[in-house]
Amino acid sequence: MEWKNFDLLDSYGKLKALKPVMVKDVMAGENGAVRVENYQVPMSNGMVYNFAAKQVDDTVLDVLQGLADEAELTAKFEALYNGAVINTGEKRMVLHQLCRGQLGNDVIADGVNKREFYVTQQKRIAEFCEKVYSGEIVNENGEKFTTIVQIGIGGSDLGPRALYLALEGWAKVNNTLKMDAKFISNVDPDDATAVLKTVDIAHSLFVVVSKSGTTLETLTNEAFVKNAIEAAGCNPSKHMLAVTSETSPLANNPAYLDSFYMDDYIGGRYSSSSAVGGCVLSLAFGPEVFARIMDGAAAEDQLAKNADIRKNPAMMDALIGVYERNFLGYPSTAVLPYSQALSRFPAHLQQLDMESNGKSVNRFGEPIDYVTGPTIFGEPGTNGQHSFYQLLHQGTDIIPLQFVGYRNNQMDNDVDIQGSTSQQKLSANVAAQIMAFACGKDDENRNKYFEGNRPSSIIVADKLVPETLGALLAHFENKVMFQGFVWNINSFDQEGVQLGKLLAKKVLAKETDGALTAYSKLLGIF
Amino acid sequence: MEWKNFDLLDSYGKLKALKPVMVKDVMAGENGAVRVENYQVPMSNGMVYNFAAKQVDDTVLDVLQGLADEAELTAKFEALYNGAVINTGEKRMVLHQLCRGQLGNDVIADGVNKREFYVTQQKRIAEFCEKVYSGEIVNENGEKFTTIVQIGIGGSDLGPRALYLALEGWAKVNNTLKMDAKFISNVDPDDATAVLKTVDIAHSLFVVVSKSGTTLETLTNEAFVKNAIEAAGCNPSKHMLAVTSETSPLANNPAYLDSFYMDDYIGGRYSSSSAVGGCVLSLAFGPEVFARIMDGAAAEDQLAKNADIRKNPAMMDALIGVYERNFLGYPSTAVLPYSQALSRFPAHLQQLDMESNGKSVNRFGEPIDYVTGPTIFGEPGTNGQHSFYQLLHQGTDIIPLQFVGYRNNQMDNDVDIQGSTSQQKLSANVAAQIMAFACGKDDENRNKYFEGNRPSSIIVADKLVPETLGALLAHFENKVMFQGFVWNINSFDQEGVQLGKLLAKKVLAKETDGALTAYSKLLGIF
Repeated sequence: MEWKNFDLLDSYGKLKALKPVMVKDVMAGENGAVRVENYQVPMSNGMVYNFAAKQVDDTVLDVLQGLADEAELTAKFEALYNGAVINTGEKRMVLHQLCRGQLGNDVIADGVNKREFYVTQQKRIAEFCEKVYSGEIVNENGEKFTTIVQIGIGGSDLGPRALYLALEGWAKVNNTLKMDAKFISNVDPDDATAVLKTVDIAHSLFVVVSKSGTTLETLTNEAFVKNAIEAAGCNPSKHMLAVTSETSPLANNPAYLDSFYMDDYIGGRYSSSSAVGGCVLSLAFGPEVFARIMDGAAAEDQLAKNADIRKNPAMMDALIGVYERNFLGYPSTAVLPYSQALSRFPAHLQQLDMESNGKSVNRFGEPIDYVTGPTIFGEPGTNGQHSFYQLLHQGTDIIPLQFVGYRNNQMDNDVDIQGSTSQQKLSANVAAQIMAFACGKDDENRNKYFEGNRPSSIIVADKLVPETLGALLAHFENKVMFQGFVWNINSFDQEGVQLGKLLAKKVLAKETDGALTAYSKLLGIF
Repeated sequence: MEWKNFDLLDSYGKLKALKPVMVKDVMAGENGAVRVENYQVPMSNGMVYNFAAKQVDDTVLDVLQGLADEAELTAKFEALYNGAVINTGEKRMVLHQLCRGQLGNDVIADGVNKREFYVTQQKRIAEFCEKVYSGEIVNENGEKFTTIVQIGIGGSDLGPRALYLALEGWAKVNNTLKMDAKFISNVDPDDATAVLKTVDIAHSLFVVVSKSGTTLETLTNEAFVKNAIEAAGCNPSKHMLAVTSETSPLANNPAYLDSFYMDDYIGGRYSSSSAVGGCVLSLAFGPEVFARIMDGAAAEDQLAKNADIRKNPAMMDALIGVYERNFLGYPSTAVLPYSQALSRFPAHLQQLDMESNGKSVNRFGEPIDYVTGPTIFGEPGTNGQHSFYQLLHQGTDIIPLQFVGYRNNQMDNDVDIQGSTSQQKLSANVAAQIMAFACGKDDENRNKYFEGNRPSSIIVADKLVPETLGALLAHFENKVMFQGFVWNINSFDQEGVQLGKLLAKKVLAKETDGALTAYSKLLGIF
């Protein structure tokens, strides 16, 4: 297995030489229907990744398959899940998939079987949950806890929050919402103040989440919350949990009711499957619901092992994305879930993708000569249709689109207006948008003219439930991983966040000069 | 006054010939401090727009001033606020600024003085508020209303929601939160179901917001809510208000307690200043708080009349953005407010900017040969620092940044940890980020190397209060307007949203063929 820069592969030149497919032409008429039928990859849990409206045809797909083979994507994934040191910058293994299943050999690190370590944490969390629900673990007055507040930032916030919101409504109608969950992330003191105003502190558990136990924002918010707990006449050590690494100052610390562990082999943006997501989501929905999310993700991970891109949805999605980014020249991708429950899922994907693949050096630290990760943004449909879709349809740039749609809504409540349900209207809109973007519309009035040729794909599932949510999470993690392999970058470190932290410390220590002093004065810090 | 395509102006060639300023060079050392001092434009309400870290110098600024003069930006704004038909596509005046103040001559339309019309609606809303607070308007059981639920989508949702969230915490600590506000927007039935689960219907007022009175999503959600009100044993006509145009089917309709009016001269994304924002924000915070937002915006509008870009913050911001978009080649802009209360403000700006300027034809409907509106996205700091900032720092593309910072937090509650308050940490981070992006950092380890040269600007205010929020709103509206003038496009229509609506209707009527039928089947509609 060889790690080579993308532009040194034969496939690079072949991709460059391809004639781009015009979506407007190939999606018109009955040929379009045939493409919708043929250009899809089955996912797990009854889902499907459909790429009919992408700028590909069998010729392009064959070259992309050649790229997958030449870049040895399957072998690299195999190396990853068998415990190779894929995170070269930090010299670490990359094991988030191992939280949800065993894809290959046993992985031993720090003297333990890592699959067993992750499962042990899940079991410990499940036992803790049962004690909270049963009233074995209670507050100072012997009363049950009703709310869980996660204190974390970045990957300790965005992923778990997106997943919680994705299932909150579903859990309510299925009577499996055990505790409300809230999230405090920003160092802005108004964040903690505002969240605390909405919770009953005496009946709340707070989970402090920081792998290193040194994240400035999180420690600051922990102190803020401790003050509030004391001000409410309660004892912080009866209300606080820690999710951290075993070597952190938060581990095994009497300041917490209990501590659950993650490790260095799972980056923040991949940590929803670890105790970082496991603790808050298990407490909120019950550990069996969290286990269902993991099962859904594990099934999707299995598909990612397939060397045939026509049977590997994450790899297909990844390669089409690379083609769009490096050869069709599109710098952004919009993620557009047609489900209000996924309102914060684009923010999670924004971190997952941009933090993983926003890199300018290869995995050996050498500068590269091609573009890498795109800008990711998005909002749920149909809301976005009444907002930024104007630019997507008629703007001067082409932005590839990633739709997500469901055949059924989550909350078993709908209304029939003008001959259709709201869910039917929602689904009709996503179908309509794909075709409007693909084929456009001629009009003598150029203001009402639609160029078309805006490529999109769609992931379709029956319903947003724990399994399909887990599969969606894993799909994008694996897509980003495969793209990182193609670009020959390290998708698992984040050195780009360090410089800002360093300079912020200098400001707080008043060790600044030049413009940094001037900005500090402008902002009233000095 | 002449409307000419941007590339026909002399300034276009001059801008193209400019040598780009390297931020890394000019922001280093004491020269950087001098730039922070000099490269700023005072805004209203004690705010400032600072562009020291942008790729401009006096030479560039002089050419941009020449562009402002040649494109007659001031004359065009004057024409707009004096009632010219600036929205050429829909043949309408553009009057949102008139909601907050009289910038020029009286504007007469539909036989009335439009300033008087908007003020009348504000007064009617204020009187309605007083009746709700005093208990003159009550529910079926004579009980006071405690919650207001806005039902609207696009501009009837994003702007009002962003403004509500921006002041909710402030209002709580200042005892001016009169009613909680909630928002239902998406046609996804789970949106309405989830929101209704969080409100006490018997004590809630629902505001149906649709200019035409025909918005599919809003009418569907209205029906959904009516069912829920009836199911709760209440009478919908005692719980519902309408905000609409005087000619819509919702106007003067006994189905509503009362109706407040907007008109065709205010587009959805500009309607926060009209009854669309006025009704929900006045009810939530009190009409005097809404008036303060309007006063803040009006003061900012006054500055936008200045022909000198060094005294006109919106025009300066607009022109630097045009320079970055058309000549430096940056396709996206990130909006990064360092205030958790502005969590949804980027989503509002995303609509405002991308829907206004995502156009490929000029105001006469002729194709243009230059790029227009950029992609806009963003999240609050410091959250974003732990997410997509990796790509902003070390990705292969340069993305210009628009920071917003405050010297004080809103909620008068803070904590001192490790020698600094949370607010100081927050402000230190924004100062540090600007410099990290501007100057980068050399490192022999290329993985820890920061190229720098990432341009940014910052708007600084003392505190996020109604006046500074209104000024922020107006600043960006006016920025987008000036950019539309430069690009010679119509920033006030949105023909790009029509095709999708049309095709969705066809799906619901089962009048489809080809790929649209195939997608409809895939999504389980047929």
